Amino acid sequence: MSPKLFEVVPNFSEGRDAEKVSRIADSVRAVPGVRVLDLHSDPDHNRSVLTLVGEKEPLVEASVALARACVREIDLAAQRGVHPRIGSLDVLPFVPLGPPLSDATLQEAVRLAKMVGKTIGALGLPVYLYGAAASAPHRENLAEVRRGGYKGLVARVGDPLWEPDYGPEEISQGSGAVAVGARPFLVAFNAYLDTKDVEVARAIACEVRERDGGRPGLKALGLEVGGRAQVSMNLTDLERTPLPAALEAVRRSAEKRGVRVESTELVGMVPLSAVLEAARHYLALPELGPEHVLEAALWEGWRDSSRA
Amino acid sequence: MSPKLFEVVPNFSEGRDAEKVSRIADSVRAVPGVRVLDLHSDPDHNRSVLTLVGEKEPLVEASVALARACVREIDLAAQRGVHPRIGSLDVLPFVPLGPPLSDATLQEAVRLAKMVGKTIGALGLPVYLYGAAASAPHRENLAEVRRGGYKGLVARVGDPLWEPDYGPEEISQGSGAVAVGARPFLVAFNAYLDTKDVEVARAIACEVRERDGGRPGLKALGLEVGGRAQVSMNLTDLERTPLPAALEAVRRSAEKRGVRVESTELVGMVPLSAVLEAARHYLALPELGPEHVLEAALWEGWRDSSRA
Repeated sequence: MSPKLFEVVPNFSEGRDAEKVSRIADSVRAVPGVRVLDLHSDPDHNRSVLTLVGEKEPLVEASVALARACVREIDLAAQRGVHPRIGSLDVLPFVPLGPPLSDATLQEAVRLAKMVGKTIGALGLPVYLYGAAASAPHRENLAEVRRGGYKGLVARVGDPLWEPDYGPEEISQGSGAVAVGARPFLVAFNAYLDTKDVEVARAIACEVRERDGGRPGLKALGLEVGGRAQVSMNLTDLERTPLPAALEAVRRSAEKRGVRVESTELVGMVPLSAVLEAARHYLALPELGPEHVLEAALWEGWRDSSRA
Repeated sequence: MSPKLFEVVPNFSEGRDAEKVSRIADSVRAVPGVRVLDLHSDPDHNRSVLTLVGEKEPLVEASVALARACVREIDLAAQRGVHPRIGSLDVLPFVPLGPPLSDATLQEAVRLAKMVGKTIGALGLPVYLYGAAASAPHRENLAEVRRGGYKGLVARVGDPLWEPDYGPEEISQGSGAVAVGARPFLVAFNAYLDTKDVEVARAIACEVRERDGGRPGLKALGLEVGGRAQVSMNLTDLERTPLPAALEAVRRSAEKRGVRVESTELVGMVPLSAVLEAARHYLALPELGPEHVLEAALWEGWRDSSRA
């Protein structure tokens, strides 16, 4: 049986001072069994995003080490950036990596988020659970938890609807609070159109998304990005709406409006199964599986030998 | 720097006695650093094919262990099967896994094949080098080396054009000889048409293959397989003719003839880059790389940690 793997995507409030960012990331790299897959710093937002993968115990240890490092390195009172934020370690979402990558479930990600929240709370940071880990429906949406940023959160101290789930009620000026959550795996997939007209992108988004009768598990918005109209999508159910189904829905809807998809982009990572599904679909290659991919077979071998 | 990896695809002359096959495969599995990615036995051909991957030294050790096991387990004089064969360990091709999987080259595969050939020759088996490792042009083609099978080879003993490269000139009845070769990595990719007419498949194969002015690095034949016409392809240069280019060439040629590609199949394994190229092409997703694939990033991490 494969191990239960989770992806964690911590956002922390430092994206300009490369040495600080590097020391913070190193605190996680020092934990055996945790893989740092990506580190992206955004100077405008003065914010960095780590992508970690690992099993439960190493991720708890890494989360605590990360929280300590953020408190030590970042003074939120002195920090400026355009992104709304509530803390030095700002957001900490746990994402289960389901089959075929591992057999972790959202319920297990919720338990992991709560365990981490409790431990970070014991360090003296107020912790607000959100997403599938939220303790009440009005706290599920991350945007609600951080409405008004740090100041908004301070203004709600004493409001019984906004007591922290763990840690002290008082929010320190220097380190703020942490939103710890659990959410299903999703793929962020954007299609750029050969038009600048954002209204066309909005009409396509409306036609293809589940909310308005479109594809299951597909969320979509029409945006203008870099002077081009973009259909910005989240695929939350890759079995029912894989990448080709989402793209072909957008292509059909675009064609009706006399426009075309020029190119697409992925934000973040996808499981191998999503890439294989695209190849299966467009190459009419129904039997293609991970057993046909050299690297996947080698990875199995390496993993098995390292666990033996 | 990534390790230099080679794929080895030994063919041995036993495909019916599962216990013998299993003991032969175990001789390879016992070698640390060698991964057995696949084992396929064909009772009709009375023949099995292993797919191994590893670095140079472990593969030399595995090849020698395999040759010993085949000599021990298989009595060629008693062996029957429809496939032409020259030895108990019949064919031993070495294939470099180039970038991005590793930086092994065909020249290194040739050196590896010769090193293995010499070592197996010292065990008392006549060794004929073929492919890129051949010692003369007339011995490059494997079909020429094993023309007439075991009996054909015995008939050529004493012919100066057909001296073995290593080992004794005399060929034992029980274990025969071994063809050891090196060849570039290739992908075997077949397209099934919605017709039974093999002449249509032949015309399409002729139009798309390099030999007749088609796609670079593409070899193709028209065949009838299971009552359906099939365009059977070997892609020997995935950079110049990746899977989508080959398939779209077949689709265009088929359309002109009023037929369609119903489905495709892969025989053997492909590098992740081939699957990514298909997804890039059809999803209009030019930036897609292995760094976007969770498993690939994890594999890098696991490999790095196991080498540290």
